[in-house]
Amino acid sequence: MEITRLQISEWLQNLQDSICGVLETVDGGAVFSTEPWTREEGGGGRSRVIKNGNVFEKGGVMFSAVHGDAPAFLFQEKAHSVEVSEKTDKPQFFATGVSIVIHPKNPLVPIIHMNVRYFEMTGGVRWLGGGIDLTPHYIDMEDAAVFHNALKKVCDAAHPDYYQRFKKWADDYFYITHRKETRGIGGIFFDRLNENELSFAQNFEFWKAVGEAFAPLYAALVNKSKTKPFTEQQKQWQLLRRGRYVEFNLVYDKGTKFGLETNGRIESILMSLPALAGWEYNYNPSEGSTEQQTLDLLKKEINWISFS
Amino acid sequence: MEITRLQISEWLQNLQDSICGVLETVDGGAVFSTEPWTREEGGGGRSRVIKNGNVFEKGGVMFSAVHGDAPAFLFQEKAHSVEVSEKTDKPQFFATGVSIVIHPKNPLVPIIHMNVRYFEMTGGVRWLGGGIDLTPHYIDMEDAAVFHNALKKVCDAAHPDYYQRFKKWADDYFYITHRKETRGIGGIFFDRLNENELSFAQNFEFWKAVGEAFAPLYAALVNKSKTKPFTEQQKQWQLLRRGRYVEFNLVYDKGTKFGLETNGRIESILMSLPALAGWEYNYNPSEGSTEQQTLDLLKKEINWISFS
Repeated sequence: MEITRLQISEWLQNLQDSICGVLETVDGGAVFSTEPWTREEGGGGRSRVIKNGNVFEKGGVMFSAVHGDAPAFLFQEKAHSVEVSEKTDKPQFFATGVSIVIHPKNPLVPIIHMNVRYFEMTGGVRWLGGGIDLTPHYIDMEDAAVFHNALKKVCDAAHPDYYQRFKKWADDYFYITHRKETRGIGGIFFDRLNENELSFAQNFEFWKAVGEAFAPLYAALVNKSKTKPFTEQQKQWQLLRRGRYVEFNLVYDKGTKFGLETNGRIESILMSLPALAGWEYNYNPSEGSTEQQTLDLLKKEINWISFS
Repeated sequence: MEITRLQISEWLQNLQDSICGVLETVDGGAVFSTEPWTREEGGGGRSRVIKNGNVFEKGGVMFSAVHGDAPAFLFQEKAHSVEVSEKTDKPQFFATGVSIVIHPKNPLVPIIHMNVRYFEMTGGVRWLGGGIDLTPHYIDMEDAAVFHNALKKVCDAAHPDYYQRFKKWADDYFYITHRKETRGIGGIFFDRLNENELSFAQNFEFWKAVGEAFAPLYAALVNKSKTKPFTEQQKQWQLLRRGRYVEFNLVYDKGTKFGLETNGRIESILMSLPALAGWEYNYNPSEGSTEQQTLDLLKKEINWISFS
């Protein structure tokens, strides 16, 4: 049985609603707004946003399913070029996905990002991509181990190499080159899952498991820390860490670039930016501070699972 | 008499100090810190930063003079390619300039940006660039006319076409494509002043006049508004406008890109970012509000001088 784009986009909309339900319960105050939108060139989406909650300051769980003439950059990577038999036909693309970024109020609760996406191109080419990564304002080693262990479990159920490979991919992808810092503790990131190792159907199961792992995993991390007291200084540090988040998303993030270059809905694309972010010239935390300890851990190739 | 790079960089350092002096007087509280730095690959700079003043929340007046192997992208623009006689010698570049961004506390005082820069390349190619542009949180038509009139005067003293040409260049350059908004009311922007119309010495006089116009012009605008009372709502709007400023600088600004790609001093490059910025999902000012009036004026090709 062929898995159709319609089935995939319906599954994604259900995922969106179920995640929003879990996050609303965790927040215990605010609810998600729901805003459908259409894209002039084809398709549209449904943006769901929460703000000023008890726990969540700003967050979005965004669904989209867009299609139309494929943007040029999709053809620039030779390895994935598409055979178009009739040169007069413009190649078409279809892309659907759920993207999430959540900025909590409490600096002891981490920022999270999740994305699951599906692409189709003229000529029958299609692929799955996605990932989950965590950006704590303060790194808690125990939480980091729990987070990576949970992702490893999802990966291991699909393929023995997936965790190691996709963990490295996240390390490399979520890297702020000009700061020489990772964005957070990474997680997993993958794109264009190929069918050499697993069938499309097997990869689809893995991909769905990633989407389904998000809500319970983040809910557990948030519930653990959401009522912890915090200081004004920790709040200031949170603003600076959010500044780095803004730098990554505007300078490096491919999803953001894709959105800007395909004339996407700008408010949905930039939903990832926090309500408030800060920059302080030449700020350096004091030696031995928890802020400095976090900075020291914003590196690639840390085996977070070893801290469990 | 040939104008040397040494003369130019000395003139720029004097300009930096004289501007800081004027701004300190306007602020009446904070003073600029002074931080010399060196660049591993050659050259360095002197960063001067003000923060938490009476008037200025965060601002930098940065001088740099860097040199070394020219980055590849300087050769990609064919019109400005350089004749390198000995292929074995790596082409060298020298770049010096003063860059300023000032974020005031009071939302009724505009953000300003100024830059004057000089480039030299192997093979005797050299050019001047620069500009001044204003980003009011609330556009005041009278101020806009004063600002553009002052810039026109500086331009007219050099060449009858300069204002019109460089005003358009600023409109096009300081454009946030994904928002379909200009960053502010523009000003003038120019690069690679050529020697077809004016000699290098004549352009150099114009370029110096731009640098010298900055302090009195901005001081007058700031002094006019710095004691005006403002509301919490206006402060919130300022945060959103600063968010747009961040978007422009991280997504489009060539100076920022140049700095990031030449391994520049990151704290100096990103000094342009405000102490605090905000993003609100899908925010739209109410019809007829002063915020909406400002948005309606963030367009290219407005003849600001006509409002004088």
